[in-house]
Formats: sequence, C-alpha cells, structure tokens
Amino acid sequence: MDRILFTNRVVDELASMLAHLPKEDMFVLFDSNTYAYWYSFFEKIDFIKEHVIVCEEGEKNKSIESAAKIWSVLSRKGARRNSLLINIGGGMITDLGGFAAACFKRGMRYINIPTTLLAQVDASVGGKTGVNFDGLKNEIGHFYFPEKTFIDPVFLKTLPERQFWSGYAEILKHALLSTADDVYATMEINSLSSKDKLMDIIRRSVKLKSDIVTSDPFEKGARKSLNFGHTAGHAMESIAQEWKCPLYHGEAVAYGMLFELYLSVQKKGFELTLYKLLEEFIFTRYGPMPRVEPEIFYRQMLHDKKNGKAEINFTLLRRPGEYETDVYCTRKEIMEVWSYFQS
Amino acid sequence: MDRILFTNRVVDELASMLAHLPKEDMFVLFDSNTYAYWYSFFEKIDFIKEHVIVCEEGEKNKSIESAAKIWSVLSRKGARRNSLLINIGGGMITDLGGFAAACFKRGMRYINIPTTLLAQVDASVGGKTGVNFDGLKNEIGHFYFPEKTFIDPVFLKTLPERQFWSGYAEILKHALLSTADDVYATMEINSLSSKDKLMDIIRRSVKLKSDIVTSDPFEKGARKSLNFGHTAGHAMESIAQEWKCPLYHGEAVAYGMLFELYLSVQKKGFELTLYKLLEEFIFTRYGPMPRVEPEIFYRQMLHDKKNGKAEINFTLLRRPGEYETDVYCTRKEIMEVWSYFQS
Repeated sequence: MDRILFTNRVVDELASMLAHLPKEDMFVLFDSNTYAYWYSFFEKIDFIKEHVIVCEEGEKNKSIESAAKIWSVLSRKGARRNSLLINIGGGMITDLGGFAAACFKRGMRYINIPTTLLAQVDASVGGKTGVNFDGLKNEIGHFYFPEKTFIDPVFLKTLPERQFWSGYAEILKHALLSTADDVYATMEINSLSSKDKLMDIIRRSVKLKSDIVTSDPFEKGARKSLNFGHTAGHAMESIAQEWKCPLYHGEAVAYGMLFELYLSVQKKGFELTLYKLLEEFIFTRYGPMPRVEPEIFYRQMLHDKKNGKAEINFTLLRRPGEYETDVYCTRKEIMEVWSYFQS
Repeated sequence: MDRILFTNRVVDELASMLAHLPKEDMFVLFDSNTYAYWYSFFEKIDFIKEHVIVCEEGEKNKSIESAAKIWSVLSRKGARRNSLLINIGGGMITDLGGFAAACFKRGMRYINIPTTLLAQVDASVGGKTGVNFDGLKNEIGHFYFPEKTFIDPVFLKTLPERQFWSGYAEILKHALLSTADDVYATMEINSLSSKDKLMDIIRRSVKLKSDIVTSDPFEKGARKSLNFGHTAGHAMESIAQEWKCPLYHGEAVAYGMLFELYLSVQKKGFELTLYKLLEEFIFTRYGPMPRVEPEIFYRQMLHDKKNGKAEINFTLLRRPGEYETDVYCTRKEIMEVWSYFQS
C-alpha cells in the first residue's frame, strides 16, 4: 500500500515528487480523451511539451503499435532507465504505459495516475501491464510495478455514469472476496452517497487488492482469487467487442461474477438469498444479461489464459471471503448455468 | 550456476527434461541457419511440427516484428504460461526468444540452448532479453531468466572461425574482470588447443559472469562491470551496421575493450606492458582498429543507454579484476585516446 497514495491534491503531490527530477527526464502519457479534459489541470507542472505523448483513446489502441509509438518518442528524446513515465488516464493508459515502461531499455521508472474508477481500484494496483494482441486481451505484457500510484477522487467528477458503474463492479468483486458486511456496504452506494463514503469504499477496495497482490505478486496462488468473475467476464467482453455497443470491462465482469456466483450456488453452496440480492443489484445497475450463443461463449472461455490446461477452471465462492481457485467445471455444468440466464 | 548445465549430451538431457511435459506444451524456436544445420540433430525429440518456429537469421530480424510472429504462433497454437519455449541458436535467438517468452501472457517458461560461443558465454547467461528498435541495439527488452541453459561444445564444431573469435572476446572480457592469470590463460588458446582446455575456459568464463549476475541481477552495481568494453564497443557495432561487412558483436567488443583499456592506462594506471600484449592479441585475432570519424563515434556513445546522465561513463580497470564503474571521461580524454588508434 505504501506505493499507493490517496490524496485530494494530486497536482501538488506530483509536483513535490518531481521537484528533484530534471525536466528532460519526465515523460507524460495521456489518452486523447483524458488529455482534452485534464491536461490544463496539470499546468502547474512544467512538462516539456515534446515530452507529452498523446495516444488515441479506446481499447483497440492498447496495442503493440501504440507501445512502439511511445518507444519511438522515448528513444528519440533520449529517455533513460532513470527517466520517469507518468501515465495519466484509464486502465488502457496505465496498462499500455506500464508495458511500454517495462520494456524500454529493459525497464524504466513509471508512475500511474488513474483517472477512472476502474483504473483506480483495479488496473493500477498489482503491476499487471499489457497490450491486446491478435484480438486477445492482455495477451502480451509483463508484471512490472509502478513506483507510485496517485488516487484522487477529483477525476471521478467528469466520469460518465456508465464508466463509474463499470469500475464499481471491481469494487463489488473485492467485497465478495472480503466479507458479507463489505458486500452489503458495497450494494448500498448510489448516486446520493457522499464523496467521503465513496472514498472510504475505494480505499478499502484498493487495500484488499493490494494485500492479495503483495502476498502473491506473480499469480501463483492467492492472487488467482482476483480472477473471480473474469473467466466468464473476459469471454463476454471479447465476444461483445464485435457488437455495435461493446460491453465495458466492468460490465462484463459484473455479468461474469453473476455467472460464476450461480455456478458457486450450484457447486459450492453459496447462499441463494444473497445471490438473489446480487442478481437484482447487477441487473438494476447494468441491465439484463446479454444474449450470447452458448457454444461461442464456451469456446471463448477455452482460450482464456488463466487456465492451466485445456479445461475451464473458475474461482468459486462458498461464501464472501471464502474462495476456491482453479475449480474445474464440466461443459454440462457450464451450459446448464448459462441456460438459466438465457431462459 | 544451477540453471546452467554443461554437457556433452544435450539431446539426452533435453529429452529427460521434457519427459513429463505434454507435447503440445513444447515450442521450439530456431533461426533459419541453425535450423538447417541442427534440426535433425534433435530428431530424437518428438516435437510437434507446427510448434517449430523458424525465424530468419541475422541481427536485423531481432525485432518487434519477429517477436510478434512468435506471439502469433504461440497464441494460435494455444500456448499457455506453463508451456515451454526452447530457444536454439545464437544470441539473436536467445535474446529474441527470451523477450517473446517474457511478454507472452506476462511471462511463459523458456530454456536456452545457445549454439555459438558468444551466446554460450554471454547472451544466454544473465536474463537479459531484448530486440533492436529504431536502429538501437536491445532498446526494447526485459530482465527475464530462462529456467535452464544447456551448454554443449558440439555446436562449436560448425561455427565459422570468425564467429568463434567473436565469442572469444567476451571470454577475454570475463578474464580481465577476474585475474591476471585468467588473462594470460585466455591469450594462450589457439586452434591447436584441446577441446577439454577450451571447455574448461568456457566453464570458468560462464561461472564468472553468472556469479556477477547473481550478486546483482538488475544491474544496479557490480553487474555494470560487465559493460567493460561495451560503451565504445556498442558504438562501433552500431556504426559498423552500415558497412558492407559489419562487425560481429564480439569483434566490436574486442575493439571497445582495447579503447577502454587504453583509457584505463591513461586514467587508472593500468599496466602498459600488459596493455601492449592485449593490443597485439586483439590486432592479431581481429585485425586493426576500424577507421571511424571521431565525431560520429563520440555521438554514438552519447546515445548509449548505460549512462545515467548526458555524459559518457566507462567501466575502467586499474588491473585485471579491479574495476571502477561509471567513470566519467571528458570529450577531450576520449578524443585523445581515439586519436592514438587512428594515427
């Protein structure tokens, strides 16, 4: 957690961190959207204009080609291992910038300033960096930790509602991996909740993820619990990329969690009453489960990298905070649960 | 050193290592040249044909594009984090394959079977992986260690003389970082030396490098000594890439060492008599120092990534085994030493 700073004064904190760094050693990466909204917010910090790198927004630009563009600028402007790349944006930017930093001269310094709720509670904690490749999410990447992550709620005020709830799905996931009390508290948040209450939930959520990651940085054991909701969720997200209005990551995870919770009800005795409350919460916030051809859904999951072998494994819950990773489920079990949602 | 296996029976050793791995989890990477000479040598091992990846030989193919081709095959054939990439070839293949493995699904297993002397004593020891980018050597890469490295002298018998001596330059470098006795022993090797004597020298050389790397895996301190000869050497190698007959890496390092040794004579009191012996050895083995415009040489060094700041630093020697890293040298000092060689 000492690498993660919660603050209401991100610009001042950043300025003080950069005070002793030569200007020519600072590089800033924005996506085009965040640049438009937030560049002037950072004007107190005297970045060299040519050291500001703006990458087109959108998941499709989280690519090797975008990383190569960043490397070209860094290389041309004489960046060194001791230079600092400052990633300002959502998860797409923190993942892409982190990957670019991980590989530039075999690893340069970087920090993250996540500007979406999703990136604050998920992408920017845990050292996972990566880009999409050949249509597969995060197929190419590395474990490489930022020197510092600044979390400031100021960025959330320009966040569209749909993006806010997308991020909130990961908070719900962390709560489900923690305690029943956390789950109930998480379901209480709505648009009338105070900023302080929200910040408190964010802080607890980040701490939970950070504790898990610290105990297992390279995903050999406990960290796999964070994949809860993601086997089904990633598959849905990949499939939805073809749609006119693709799912956001958190939305896909929300549906993925619901799918895996119902599997947990069937296989691990997760309490049906709590499941029903969660189902109502998710359908209310995210809309009904999308309709996907079962065979396509099944095949997409088979390609998921989290599986050790050619079978589909899930993280399932007995109750909040009690999980089992690598639970093998048969094709029949998966199809039965899927038919519950599609009926 | 336990990750490095010296053997005269590499195929048997490999077969026994792979005995319990499902065939579909093995992937083999060759360069086209090594594939032509050595593929049949490995026929005892029943690789899946579609899992053999052949990359065009040559430094210019140590690129992001080649890595992307490897990732495409791995991805299409369902490789997982637990799959094993077996890199068989020179440093170009161990660097490229290591980088591809480092980034595939955030890190898959890999082993190295270096087939050149240079790769055996240098590239495949130390976890440095990488590709060239925008004309800069190893600009993009990562520290990522192979699970195992097999060193077998059998591969050296098809190695052209020029490549042999290129690799030998790194052995000389390791000797210079060790003791005067090692330096004299290294200068005694010639084409009449026995295979056992050569293997003994290779083993000592690998052990020396491995000890240094283990003491400082991420190049924060002692490991920098291994850059001896490389500040000047890399610059010459980059410049020579434009020539009709470019320098081999080890040749450039040999000239680079000579340059830095003469700087050491001037600034650190390295013994002139020993220097003269080394000069004779290097000019005899590698030919006279190439003629390069001093300004071009100087500017190329300025771009070298090993420098912490916008100045040129070297690893210099007081005597064999006694080095000083990050020694700043003025432009005047550098130019004076260069003029000695170009006069």
